[in-house]
Amino acid sequence: MSLIDVKNVTTVAVIGGGTIGASWSAWFLAQGFTVRCSDPSAAAREAAPGMIAACWPQLSALGASGSADQALARFSVWESHLQAVEGADYVQENAPERLELKQKLLSEIDAALPIDRVIGSSTSGLKASDMQTGMAHPQRLVVAHPFNPPHLVPLVEIVGGKQTSEEAADWAVAFFNAHGKRAIRVRKEVPGHIANRLQAALWKEAAYLVQSGVASVEDVDLATSEGPGLRWAIMGPHLTFHLGGGTGGMAHFYDHLVPAMQTWWADLGTPVMDAALREKLVEGVQQEVGDRSIADLSAERDRKLIAILNVLSPDPQD
Amino acid sequence: MSLIDVKNVTTVAVIGGGTIGASWSAWFLAQGFTVRCSDPSAAAREAAPGMIAACWPQLSALGASGSADQALARFSVWESHLQAVEGADYVQENAPERLELKQKLLSEIDAALPIDRVIGSSTSGLKASDMQTGMAHPQRLVVAHPFNPPHLVPLVEIVGGKQTSEEAADWAVAFFNAHGKRAIRVRKEVPGHIANRLQAALWKEAAYLVQSGVASVEDVDLATSEGPGLRWAIMGPHLTFHLGGGTGGMAHFYDHLVPAMQTWWADLGTPVMDAALREKLVEGVQQEVGDRSIADLSAERDRKLIAILNVLSPDPQD
Repeated sequence: MSLIDVKNVTTVAVIGGGTIGASWSAWFLAQGFTVRCSDPSAAAREAAPGMIAACWPQLSALGASGSADQALARFSVWESHLQAVEGADYVQENAPERLELKQKLLSEIDAALPIDRVIGSSTSGLKASDMQTGMAHPQRLVVAHPFNPPHLVPLVEIVGGKQTSEEAADWAVAFFNAHGKRAIRVRKEVPGHIANRLQAALWKEAAYLVQSGVASVEDVDLATSEGPGLRWAIMGPHLTFHLGGGTGGMAHFYDHLVPAMQTWWADLGTPVMDAALREKLVEGVQQEVGDRSIADLSAERDRKLIAILNVLSPDPQD
Repeated sequence: MSLIDVKNVTTVAVIGGGTIGASWSAWFLAQGFTVRCSDPSAAAREAAPGMIAACWPQLSALGASGSADQALARFSVWESHLQAVEGADYVQENAPERLELKQKLLSEIDAALPIDRVIGSSTSGLKASDMQTGMAHPQRLVVAHPFNPPHLVPLVEIVGGKQTSEEAADWAVAFFNAHGKRAIRVRKEVPGHIANRLQAALWKEAAYLVQSGVASVEDVDLATSEGPGLRWAIMGPHLTFHLGGGTGGMAHFYDHLVPAMQTWWADLGTPVMDAALREKLVEGVQQEVGDRSIADLSAERDRKLIAILNVLSPDPQD
């Protein structure tokens, strides 16, 4: 079986029209695709076009051509996933994180879709191996996990299940990368894929430092965003340490700096997730944000994210 | 004892003229200070002005006024630390990371310097409590730990020792923040201060994922820089999760998402630092960088760092 050529994809089905589905829809529309979305909730179907329109100025700032209205002319929203997948060349599934529900949905989509089309799931918590058990063509299911917000953050984690073909996983990587995402292959099914594990590892120590009284919530946050965070937007931890090794690179780093690193590892902590820590974190964040609302902060984050993406892009938009 | 007014600082002594000392010197010059540097090595003294001049185009891009030559007219380099601290209003010490050496140096500087002046040490591995034991005025010693490269990265971690006064630590925070750094207070002396612990925590999991075969070195790096890393340049982990909690903020996050987080924590790993991992990391980084040299990569990192700092700045430079 050979899969549809990545270049021939014109129509994408987006299953689920909530926050993640709408954000994915906006991104697919910005790439020029026709998007067929589905959601069993009438309220979600009604809200979806407005959510997409709200994303559009951001996508325009990143180079999307045309107006929101022009994009929405390529968008339709359906009650049933079976209507959405009619004529779809790729399916992005964003149903609630319940295994039985996803299994049923994916089996039905699988039965309706030509066998040369790949199905990606946005799941952050479930395994492709478990979701694909009821599918007649399980080989074409991959996890295609975005990072919030999906229409802005380039990362997509591609994970195959036990029955997924190498071809389907490679196809998904090629498809996303052809359209400006940075898709990576996760080669084993582990909880949290990669990025959420890295976030969890960082926050574990961050919360521990707050709990231990080493620094305030705000100062731990600043110790990230005004220091290593600035570098992590540019390069990952290995490349960072390759440069930390001077002219000897990673080999020098490994031989000379790993001993210090291991001393620090030995001293890292695990916070106790009790009511006192909850209060400390909630109050600490409140002090940090002052009178900025969640909406203000999200807008600020997105504005800065777009600015960073544009300056890091080989072809910056103005 | 009251300390010199932050606004009255005109002259800074930088002890040690190596990579860190030269980078600090360049930054202090860019703030308009007169810089008196010292290094016992004649080769280091000869090299320092060139290293500062090499930093200057970067500092100009971040808004420093005047030419490198004009800045270097305010720079002098001496053999002895006692010469460097003559007339200094603040001292930034960057001697080799050996306790006895730092103790001797700091005691001598302390004896020579008016008592209303603060002394900061760039140490990443030593404690102020240990370094200040021989000083007649130990209350004025703080750790003022920069993040590499010091002339570009805003973070400065301020840590007091057992005998350090609150006043001196507050002074150091105010001094750096008055000149565009983001100084934070680390309230307990822990190995790695904060930022290096956070880096260590992230890399521990990153290296584990490579060792376990979950992903390649390059893909783990991309899973950082194309995902959470982009957000960490904008806000730290707590603020990130405050937004992850939707309209309920950190309280909602804590109540609803910490259970998933704890599942991930339970699955985080510790890499075995053996020869096989060393080879895997060295080869993986080699694949990732291709023919880009360490110098190319450093220049690329610094260029991107400056671009990000400028777009995140409330008053961007062009």
